Amino acid sequence: MTLKIALLPGDGVGPEVLAQAVKCLEAVEETFNQRFIFKEALVGAIAIDKKGTPLPDTTLKLCKESDAVLFGAIGDPKYDNDPDAKVRPEQGLLQLRKELGLFANIRPVLSHPTLLDKSPLKKKVINGTDFVIYRELTGGIYFGEKKLNEEGTKASDLCEYSEAEISRIAHLAFKAAKGRKKKLTLVDKANVLESSRLWRKVVTRIGESYPEVALNFLFVDNAAMQIILNPRQFDVILTENMFGDIISDEGSVIGGSIGLLASASIGEENALFEPIHGSYPQAKGNDIANPIASILSAAMLLEHFGLIEEAWAIKKAVDKSLKKGIVTPDLKENSQYGTNQVGDFIAHNI
Amino acid sequence: MTLKIALLPGDGVGPEVLAQAVKCLEAVEETFNQRFIFKEALVGAIAIDKKGTPLPDTTLKLCKESDAVLFGAIGDPKYDNDPDAKVRPEQGLLQLRKELGLFANIRPVLSHPTLLDKSPLKKKVINGTDFVIYRELTGGIYFGEKKLNEEGTKASDLCEYSEAEISRIAHLAFKAAKGRKKKLTLVDKANVLESSRLWRKVVTRIGESYPEVALNFLFVDNAAMQIILNPRQFDVILTENMFGDIISDEGSVIGGSIGLLASASIGEENALFEPIHGSYPQAKGNDIANPIASILSAAMLLEHFGLIEEAWAIKKAVDKSLKKGIVTPDLKENSQYGTNQVGDFIAHNI
Ligand SMILES: CC(C)[C@H](C(=O)O)[C@@H](O)C(=O)O
Ligand SMILES: CC(C)[C@H](C(=O)O)[C@@H](O)C(=O)O
Repeated sequence: MTLKIALLPGDGVGPEVLAQAVKCLEAVEETFNQRFIFKEALVGAIAIDKKGTPLPDTTLKLCKESDAVLFGAIGDPKYDNDPDAKVRPEQGLLQLRKELGLFANIRPVLSHPTLLDKSPLKKKVINGTDFVIYRELTGGIYFGEKKLNEEGTKASDLCEYSEAEISRIAHLAFKAAKGRKKKLTLVDKANVLESSRLWRKVVTRIGESYPEVALNFLFVDNAAMQIILNPRQFDVILTENMFGDIISDEGSVIGGSIGLLASASIGEENALFEPIHGSYPQAKGNDIANPIASILSAAMLLEHFGLIEEAWAIKKAVDKSLKKGIVTPDLKENSQYGTNQVGDFIAHNI
Repeated sequence: MTLKIALLPGDGVGPEVLAQAVKCLEAVEETFNQRFIFKEALVGAIAIDKKGTPLPDTTLKLCKESDAVLFGAIGDPKYDNDPDAKVRPEQGLLQLRKELGLFANIRPVLSHPTLLDKSPLKKKVINGTDFVIYRELTGGIYFGEKKLNEEGTKASDLCEYSEAEISRIAHLAFKAAKGRKKKLTLVDKANVLESSRLWRKVVTRIGESYPEVALNFLFVDNAAMQIILNPRQFDVILTENMFGDIISDEGSVIGGSIGLLASASIGEENALFEPIHGSYPQAKGNDIANPIASILSAAMLLEHFGLIEEAWAIKKAVDKSLKKGIVTPDLKENSQYGTNQVGDFIAHNI
């Protein structure tokens, strides 16, 4: 198989971790006789610096022409505390998601047997956790109309959802549940929000076509609690954009490090794979960022194209690095291994 | 001192737990020679059943005429899965908050030395946690315009904030920080939301009047992670309505049981005190609900009126019940003590 893969390193530690994922894909090319054509493009703060926009046309064009996008990270603190900034790095990612129609963000949350001690949660609470979050990615308050009055004293954001937006991701989530533990939990705030009530109505109706899947509901405040109290209760969590953002970052504490968590963003015609961690600007250039989330994003990419054995080889190599302790300092205090060495080790074991 | 206290038991376990708080206040009356005049009124699902509205006029009138409101709990599952319900219990609480102008919800989060084992988090992570969340309570997406199109295929909620709404709670939060560990963390999503950027701008400006308080910022997704990874880093967290709802329920896992957490909702002229837990309908009438959150709400009420010694007596009695294991089953498996017995024990020890 030949796959055209757009590489978008982005900001902060993005380039460093993405380079490790590429190493691993190159190892897959050799071992499994596949062919990947990589092309790189700018996105985020670095694109603003060089081209004046966080998502240059050439970048978007490249992504559209590619079979998949491998994304690094986005964001730069110099924009965060400037409420008057006209452009922001994050707009690049949001616009990219929208333009590519990546409506479903899929985030697996697993406890790693070798890392049970790293989590702030007790072993007995997290052991055996295995759920996946389906987060709607191109609707809701992230993309609704934003307003600021002229005096700069009043601001608003609109959270809007249509039946069609809810239904397409709901089908994906139910299908996933069908192939897993057959349980789907909708997270919403239907006791307060109109948009949440629409979610509940549409998802309930769609659920009738998946009688083998048990559907239940949790208010988002309760969900934020349950994910910590008893993460094993979950199989597939379906939720809207902002709630998904919050609870999936929260869920990352289960695995012991956010540096382990990959995600896939899926649309009708495109797909993008990225770590769930941010650009971690403090670590930039220090060769300490954990490359595993980026490497596992590459594995999710392979799975997406049916390259199951290849994805498996990456995951096994990652497990080996965890078991042998060939990991970055976030996973082992005073670890001698840097981003590059961990990437090399994993790539060599594919 | 004579205080007129409106009692709003509400739904589910609300009446049971509120009755224990009243017992404790009666004990305070005797021991400290204070006088509380209690009057009860309907709110929530029970008010819908009896009066057709979740907040009857007589209830609102009583609350306005009282010095403070002691609230039980609200919500009934029969409304949750009915997207077409015209009235909902929760509207009663939201409307009450709005009508009484209760713009600041204050939720302390503490680790209890005697309950460290009950938390799903590791002891070493939570030991010594002591922060307080200032949640804006009468603005944002809870109260913004809600729309549903005629076909019922599109729904929206508006998240709106004005400078004035942000500034009044920000001042309260900065003052609280000044009297504590002098650190204030604003939780927002300023990299995406216009309303969050207004929060950041206004809070930054107000912070200049509190130079002794260190101000920092966290995106809400990161905050959801940090509260679990390292809860001791926080002192005062300030945030908007919905984010506060989510992260304060999440924070409840630190204390070992949501049944322990009280909250105060403060306005210019009124104040309401309630547990942060919900109506827990499965437990209704079983004498198993933990009354401590409700009892500690009564303690917060006393503190609000400067009755510090009285509040202290309640808290000490609560500590005693925790130390002696005179607690409900949520805190001790197979505990023989019910809601009433725990309430009696605490009241007798005041
Ligand atoms: C960078 C930011 C816009 C983004 C989001 O909130 O969607 C990130 O936090 C994520 O979760 O992918
Ligand atoms: C009952 C509900 C409307 C309420 C809220 O979300 O504000 C509750 O969850 C709370 O946190 O007090």
